[in-house]
Amino acid sequence: MGEFEFIESIRRRFEGVGDPGIMGIGDDCAVLPIGDDGEAFVVTTDMLVEGVHFLRGGGSGRKPEEARELMEAHELGAKSLAVNLSDIAAMGARPVASFLSIALPADCRSSWADGFMEGYREMSARHGVRLAGGDTTGSLQGVAINVTAIGRAPLCRLKYRSGARPDDIVVVNGPLGESAAGLRDILAGRHDTPLAHIHRNPVPQVAEGEWLGARAEVHSMIDLSDGLASDLVHILRASGVAAEVEFAAIPTPVSLELAVTGGEDYKLLFTVSPEGWPRLAADYLARFGEPLHPVGRIVAAPPEIVWLEDGASVTKNWRGFVHF
Amino acid sequence: MGEFEFIESIRRRFEGVGDPGIMGIGDDCAVLPIGDDGEAFVVTTDMLVEGVHFLRGGGSGRKPEEARELMEAHELGAKSLAVNLSDIAAMGARPVASFLSIALPADCRSSWADGFMEGYREMSARHGVRLAGGDTTGSLQGVAINVTAIGRAPLCRLKYRSGARPDDIVVVNGPLGESAAGLRDILAGRHDTPLAHIHRNPVPQVAEGEWLGARAEVHSMIDLSDGLASDLVHILRASGVAAEVEFAAIPTPVSLELAVTGGEDYKLLFTVSPEGWPRLAADYLARFGEPLHPVGRIVAAPPEIVWLEDGASVTKNWRGFVHF
Repeated sequence: MGEFEFIESIRRRFEGVGDPGIMGIGDDCAVLPIGDDGEAFVVTTDMLVEGVHFLRGGGSGRKPEEARELMEAHELGAKSLAVNLSDIAAMGARPVASFLSIALPADCRSSWADGFMEGYREMSARHGVRLAGGDTTGSLQGVAINVTAIGRAPLCRLKYRSGARPDDIVVVNGPLGESAAGLRDILAGRHDTPLAHIHRNPVPQVAEGEWLGARAEVHSMIDLSDGLASDLVHILRASGVAAEVEFAAIPTPVSLELAVTGGEDYKLLFTVSPEGWPRLAADYLARFGEPLHPVGRIVAAPPEIVWLEDGASVTKNWRGFVHF
Repeated sequence: MGEFEFIESIRRRFEGVGDPGIMGIGDDCAVLPIGDDGEAFVVTTDMLVEGVHFLRGGGSGRKPEEARELMEAHELGAKSLAVNLSDIAAMGARPVASFLSIALPADCRSSWADGFMEGYREMSARHGVRLAGGDTTGSLQGVAINVTAIGRAPLCRLKYRSGARPDDIVVVNGPLGESAAGLRDILAGRHDTPLAHIHRNPVPQVAEGEWLGARAEVHSMIDLSDGLASDLVHILRASGVAAEVEFAAIPTPVSLELAVTGGEDYKLLFTVSPEGWPRLAADYLARFGEPLHPVGRIVAAPPEIVWLEDGASVTKNWRGFVHF
């Protein structure tokens, strides 16, 4: 049973349990509406397991097939919070608090825990996020980390995967594929390249996500954690629409295939009404000093991505990164 | 470095980061005030690691020193949520949502995951708590579980560890020591005793906690997860007061030592104004059909527990269960 099947089986099992006003499984965050004043909390959680998501720097562990890479404690601390802040940004919300659970084995030196906490603190301070609680425990084998992050926004500003409409412009807010290219460097033993650094130090689009949340012309949004080919399909399925994406429009300094299938870019992918697009693009450039990148268009058709090469449809069996 | 020292080092490191209006580390839950209407969310999180907190039933793992017990998947699913609901009850709040992260190794059969999720679902349904999100991942060795639970209450109803005042009555809402006696049975190979069942199936005091939250005469509250000798000290230190506790008043069907030092009873420990106590005790009995148990009194003195045997002070070097 793969990750998505397991999640779907859980969703079915829990149907009808608890308050249906709490929107849960199936978006970047769960949404908890607050009373009658139109505010909401959004919540996301993410678990990182040694040997699956990272290897401990300086440790003695051998490198298993599933292991993604060797990471310094400081980088891992920052990244473990960053990926959750990215989910909150993708809802158009502002992160306010996080909760950190960490299981440490006896062979984990206190300098490792110290580096981890310092990386976590720096990411918290950069985005004004309060570490509001957590849990610490021992572990027989390997470090396990779980972060829960909480954000706030007016309900009316929240962006869902399900909001894309025909004729919307499909937009990404930065270059794609750099993180995957950096991982390729790391797996080849080149740990000190600029791309390797990008891979190990993801930058959540916190200010950008909150800013886009305030724009009504943005209809749907997700963060690019699994790659364009995978994450755009989440929007298409949730919205019941298709997308045409033009290869030449995809911003990447590496390769098209890495840009489309590589994970962990943590840029934002969203759709914008065609009327609102020119003004949004201009305002974004003025606010952030970087351009937005229109890569395609939503069309009324069953959910799939139609890849275009100079306007002509081409067949590519590209998929994003599959967890689990 | 023990658990409390590690948490204290984290608290110091994160001082001044984020919104100070979010009350964090140092109580059963963090408190996130909601806008201006006097409501709040409370949040708690708890990590369970195979071999440290539980052994998988039917598994091949050897039993390490630290392992607490062998648990069926169904019981573990229920317990992993129950301990978080207990924290929310201890704040006087009502649980509304939970988030479950679970890391499963390849040797973990789908029947185990199925049993776990069914136990989790039953505990969710019993208390009307929505499973609103989570994360699933692989693991190289052992199951790791993290649950985050969220509750709601008017801010003015929340009970903190810091609210105890001199002359308050110290109260518990049920018998103590049964869970520790059950663990003793299990470790001796007696898995089917009534006490072993109690240990494996903790009952969070959800309705009782919310009811006590609504009573202004309740000044402070905590749940009994580490044992009376340990958890009462948390109240005393946070409140800057001492307590006199009379052995003969401690309700236990097992032994006094287990009642005082045994963990995981998940009953509520709270303090009540002496004026409000008679009425509260009568109302609680009428509402829940079970008596409250006054075990002592708060006194204006440096934080410590003074144990009394027939009114005379006795010295006991008893401590609660120490994690980590």
